[in-house]
Amino acid sequence: MNVKTVLILLVLALATIFALVCVLLTRGKGPSTCQHQPPEQEDTDGGQSLVFADLSPEEMVQVVQYLQGNLGVQLVDASRAKPSDNCIASIDVQVPAKAEVLRFLDGGGARPPREALAVLYFGNQPEPNVTEYVVGPLPMPAYHRDVTVRRYGGPLPYHRRPVTGREYADINALIRQELRKAPRFLAACCQSDGTDLAILTTAPRGFQSGDRATWFVLFQNTPGTGYYLSPVGLEVLVEHRDLRVSHWQLRQVFYNGQYLASTQDLEDAFVTGTLEVIRLEKPQPEAVLGSMRPRQEPASPGPLHYEPRGPRYSVKHNRVTFQGWSVTFGMNPNSGPRLFDIRYRGKRIIYELSLQEALALYGSNCPGGMSTRYLDGSFGIGRFAYELVRGLDCPYTATYVDQHYLVESETPKTNQNSLCIFEHDAAIPLRRHFSDSQSLYFGGLRRGVLVIRTISTLINYDYIWDFMFHSSGAVEVRVHATGYISSSFLHGRGTDYGNRVGPHTLGTMHLHHIHYKVDLDVDGQLNSLETQDMEYELVQDPWSKQSTLERPYLRRARLQTEEEAAFPLNAPLPRYLCFASPNPNRWGHPRSYRIQITSSAGEHLPISSPMERAISWGRYQLAVTRRKEEEPSSTSIYNQNDPWTPTVAFADFVNNETITNEDLVAWISVGFLHVPHAEDVPNTVTVGNSVGFLLRPYNYFDEDPSVDSPDGVYFSGEQDSGVCGTNPLSCLSITAACVPQLPPFHYRGFLNLTLAPLPGGL
Amino acid sequence: MNVKTVLILLVLALATIFALVCVLLTRGKGPSTCQHQPPEQEDTDGGQSLVFADLSPEEMVQVVQYLQGNLGVQLVDASRAKPSDNCIASIDVQVPAKAEVLRFLDGGGARPPREALAVLYFGNQPEPNVTEYVVGPLPMPAYHRDVTVRRYGGPLPYHRRPVTGREYADINALIRQELRKAPRFLAACCQSDGTDLAILTTAPRGFQSGDRATWFVLFQNTPGTGYYLSPVGLEVLVEHRDLRVSHWQLRQVFYNGQYLASTQDLEDAFVTGTLEVIRLEKPQPEAVLGSMRPRQEPASPGPLHYEPRGPRYSVKHNRVTFQGWSVTFGMNPNSGPRLFDIRYRGKRIIYELSLQEALALYGSNCPGGMSTRYLDGSFGIGRFAYELVRGLDCPYTATYVDQHYLVESETPKTNQNSLCIFEHDAAIPLRRHFSDSQSLYFGGLRRGVLVIRTISTLINYDYIWDFMFHSSGAVEVRVHATGYISSSFLHGRGTDYGNRVGPHTLGTMHLHHIHYKVDLDVDGQLNSLETQDMEYELVQDPWSKQSTLERPYLRRARLQTEEEAAFPLNAPLPRYLCFASPNPNRWGHPRSYRIQITSSAGEHLPISSPMERAISWGRYQLAVTRRKEEEPSSTSIYNQNDPWTPTVAFADFVNNETITNEDLVAWISVGFLHVPHAEDVPNTVTVGNSVGFLLRPYNYFDEDPSVDSPDGVYFSGEQDSGVCGTNPLSCLSITAACVPQLPPFHYRGFLNLTLAPLPGGL
Repeated sequence: MNVKTVLILLVLALATIFALVCVLLTRGKGPSTCQHQPPEQEDTDGGQSLVFADLSPEEMVQVVQYLQGNLGVQLVDASRAKPSDNCIASIDVQVPAKAEVLRFLDGGGARPPREALAVLYFGNQPEPNVTEYVVGPLPMPAYHRDVTVRRYGGPLPYHRRPVTGREYADINALIRQELRKAPRFLAACCQSDGTDLAILTTAPRGFQSGDRATWFVLFQNTPGTGYYLSPVGLEVLVEHRDLRVSHWQLRQVFYNGQYLASTQDLEDAFVTGTLEVIRLEKPQPEAVLGSMRPRQEPASPGPLHYEPRGPRYSVKHNRVTFQGWSVTFGMNPNSGPRLFDIRYRGKRIIYELSLQEALALYGSNCPGGMSTRYLDGSFGIGRFAYELVRGLDCPYTATYVDQHYLVESETPKTNQNSLCIFEHDAAIPLRRHFSDSQSLYFGGLRRGVLVIRTISTLINYDYIWDFMFHSSGAVEVRVHATGYISSSFLHGRGTDYGNRVGPHTLGTMHLHHIHYKVDLDVDGQLNSLETQDMEYELVQDPWSKQSTLERPYLRRARLQTEEEAAFPLNAPLPRYLCFASPNPNRWGHPRSYRIQITSSAGEHLPISSPMERAISWGRYQLAVTRRKEEEPSSTSIYNQNDPWTPTVAFADFVNNETITNEDLVAWISVGFLHVPHAEDVPNTVTVGNSVGFLLRPYNYFDEDPSVDSPDGVYFSGEQDSGVCGTNPLSCLSITAACVPQLPPFHYRGFLNLTLAPLPGGL
Repeated sequence: MNVKTVLILLVLALATIFALVCVLLTRGKGPSTCQHQPPEQEDTDGGQSLVFADLSPEEMVQVVQYLQGNLGVQLVDASRAKPSDNCIASIDVQVPAKAEVLRFLDGGGARPPREALAVLYFGNQPEPNVTEYVVGPLPMPAYHRDVTVRRYGGPLPYHRRPVTGREYADINALIRQELRKAPRFLAACCQSDGTDLAILTTAPRGFQSGDRATWFVLFQNTPGTGYYLSPVGLEVLVEHRDLRVSHWQLRQVFYNGQYLASTQDLEDAFVTGTLEVIRLEKPQPEAVLGSMRPRQEPASPGPLHYEPRGPRYSVKHNRVTFQGWSVTFGMNPNSGPRLFDIRYRGKRIIYELSLQEALALYGSNCPGGMSTRYLDGSFGIGRFAYELVRGLDCPYTATYVDQHYLVESETPKTNQNSLCIFEHDAAIPLRRHFSDSQSLYFGGLRRGVLVIRTISTLINYDYIWDFMFHSSGAVEVRVHATGYISSSFLHGRGTDYGNRVGPHTLGTMHLHHIHYKVDLDVDGQLNSLETQDMEYELVQDPWSKQSTLERPYLRRARLQTEEEAAFPLNAPLPRYLCFASPNPNRWGHPRSYRIQITSSAGEHLPISSPMERAISWGRYQLAVTRRKEEEPSSTSIYNQNDPWTPTVAFADFVNNETITNEDLVAWISVGFLHVPHAEDVPNTVTVGNSVGFLLRPYNYFDEDPSVDSPDGVYFSGEQDSGVCGTNPLSCLSITAACVPQLPPFHYRGFLNLTLAPLPGGL
């Protein structure tokens, strides 16, 4: 090889290198990963929102240690405590009084001391009772105050306490022991020895104060599928009032329409042939009623959300900010999600927006079903808000937040990723207009909405709790019901109480009624309630005076008292209901927020019922009362087990006080009647099973606040709408061409759960 | 340079080439563009859906040519036709009779001949009239049949015809001519010479059959912004009944609360100082009330939908298929969107689902406002469904379909991209359950929903028409109102009729009532109407017999007659209302679809009103009648201009025929009362201004059909949910990592519009 050849080769090689580099540089300009662009600095509150913060696990531990050292009684961990022991039932934050908080937030006052509310079950005392203490100040508790009498007007009788996991476990043991007396019956009815049946509680537990006798319903259990659809027809009434577990007893047995005194009687009746037995096959996991295992191979993924420049909201501590909104969030282990200090453009609109209670009231011709009036707050709407599944419960790219609680334990527990926050593209304009007249133009705005969501699993069913914040200044509250229905064993005239949804399964009719507290502060704390509705007036036409026309006109009223502002559940509401401030907007109308309810509630329990007062919030679709520190919530966790002497009776809040220019609370009930049908198997769908309400600005602003949104689009017929500077939509094909960043999937929601004793059985 | 050096260089160069190639190959593996994977072959119908297809432009031209050649009269193009001329008003498809269609679709019968319905205004005849012809067969018309008498029981009086664009133009010319008589007044009130004011029609046009005298309202017009918010206080009553335009006259003038006989009187009153004049500034385009021009720079884009493997639905001709759904769509130029032959899993559920009418009925203390009862079908809900804006009206990646119409013309027109179809991620589970009891698992399904949308601009406001198809087998129908409000000039006790929303602007209260036809065929054509609702019964507890409980039970009824099935607008409905087939599902219940209405309608016009029968569909929230070929729709485009002798009076459909086991139609009214408030400026927001209904399977299946969805997710506590084979969600971070393909933005919705004469003025 001579120099010339080598040189030629070298030149060729260099040319190749040049070409390759060129290709590389060009290739490098290909689409890249979507880059997170942090939202423009929203106002920060310097940790002010922490005045509402749930307790941290560290704080809970500090309170437990304080209680253990300072109550002067022996405390047993609730997971082991017998009814005759003392134990810590729950520890939650004690939110300071509103006046104190507002002095801090608005008046430059000192940060209120941080306190906890500790609930103790004192079974090991001469007069067993439930006691509530305020413990403070955190992080180093130095005092505890018994607030029971101040709150409830007297001591809390011990029988009102919720049933603990340990108590359920002891009851289950009793039932299983009793079932051993009916081996031939169980083999015949259920191919079972009794150990593989699931046991489900009902509530309330009797007919009068002091009763603690519960019907438990038995089901075939196929692991991996909800047993709630597979009742075997057997139900048992357990008396568990005595503080000595050894004194509990099985008082009654129900099977397939017959009542018997004991499991021994059941066995005898079976053996003697006086019992009509329905012999059930053992279901196969693949074919069991209610299986949720997919039957199809996964197909292409459906449409997904992505955020080309990352999320446009920001979450710091317990506070989320988004396009003028600022919302503080938290979770009460019993009553569930609670929001505070909801502001728009810096002005507080709502001081507190919190779930209060969820009632499920059933009909059936089986004793467990017909007894059931679940008050879910007593079970724990917040503590049972488990980890959310990314990409199914919330969009894949949502922000997920942990929640901590301490209930029936001396150790804090964490529900990881149990609250999600995301901006949702509702795929509809927030507003739009196409002009075909006088001048040609188009203007509008996408409807992006901030969603805060948590989902509670209450034994069989799942409530999806949504709080939504629109760029029109509206707050939307919505609940969807899903999960498994409850059921009874089908016998006799069962279909008077629902529909048959399986070979032996009656989907039992029930109503879901849900109560919210909305402490609105519209342009200040002092508000009044205004109603507007339409009527027709028959008038002469003013120009010819020869004809008449029916003209709609507006009837405006300002309600004076709580009684006037208590609207019965199923009576028509005035079409416009507004919280009005004394201050006018630019056009002279009181600055207001409108309450708009979407609900199709069932019938409220007759007031003649001895337990009605315990759920008397359900009398009213809307009740507006004066806000009082002594009326923090419309119900109590103690109402479930003694609804006959309710610890809190909401009806007492409505006592004819004047409500003009006062600090007011709107108490809102929503709900629906659910008659389960075949399509509730495997699970109730969310489509159509949703109710809620809107809080909408009504002359609160001088014009729609979305005029200031950065998402506005406008172009005229003379403009080239395909130019990016004219129309931001036309930039998307370039700016949104990036690879969405989806984090790997993780789910740890089952950890720490395997040993938890729950009302749905072990 | 010696050989060795050169050789070393060559080796180095080759090494560089190798390295570069390696880099290139690695780089090549970067994320790529999302690849469209066509949906699995859904059943094709071999063009069967074309039996319902809207006319193509070619077909319209053929009909026009046929009419021009075969009617034996002189036809003038409607855009030029005087009232005393003959013209083509509209040409639409004549959908064949249901029996004929079903013979074709289900019975293997012949394809019915394709026909058109042509509406002609015969002004140039001894007895001027409107005549409707069926013209066929397409594509080569050979016959026309006058169907007017058969349809309406007699000829259609000419005065009932809608006002054409040409008629509006002639009226506007008359008004502008009259305005010249009040130059000083106009200069004072409006800094105007009258030529720059916008003129807006009202309707109806009088008080009795034959009247054609319309109040027109005048507005300051700022190009690029809706003039609807800027009334100047001036309104004029024009008599335009005579077929000779030269005989029309301005009959009355209204200004700021005063009625005058003419514009000359107006000028005189102004000059003599007996008129209270409100002097309005000429608004600046930047500061005009109701401007939609964004005030903020665009920010980062919000969340966008993308489809990693392309759309999962497919559109062919007039038919879309998606996960078991098959829907045929079309557009009536007058009454708007219409769907046919809606099937799920091959079985027809709905034969026809079509919008019928949209009523907007106003209150005001100005004559135009108080007269206004718009029946939008008469204006044209379908023809005014303009091009949709990609990324705002519908998701950016939606499928957009053109619609064609022929109205008041001899030439077809096209609304490009005026119907959109997309799968929407509702960002909520369709169903889900987390199991914390007995066994640990999670199961659920995203809620992906197929949406068909079109948006009609009716002068000032925009209706968003949605039809949604869920994987639970439910059909959801929804309408949102947006766009500009109507307004009156604020004077006197104006706020008895709404709220002040601008310096001189009264947002006038009104109701939006909307009517739908739903021809359900649930498991066959013959259905009955069943109701279910709850009541409480007081019963002794069956186990102790010592206490009582209030037990909900189900009251089931089968309604016998049309009267029983006509539910007044604001009376409570039975909570469950079902179209039931005679056939049971697996569990013995009649296979049914439930109708679930979400509405907050205003008060229906009193029945004593002389025009009430024209909108008597509004009496009923739901009315179920026997389906009749002679009752194709609940209203008529002729009702607007002669509501006193309605061409179609829906109330007559309800005539006590039996409705058990018959082919039935559900007629559904939804609506709301709108009291405009400051936040309706610039445009009404869609949040909270939405009503609709659901059609949900109710024991139609044996279980929820979503169990067969390919989107199901299930994993147990023992499984690793992060493994792709176990949980398809965990594949997303890989399979969905691709660059969404967003086509460039185009909008041509303003083309061909500049010259169209419209009710909102020229």
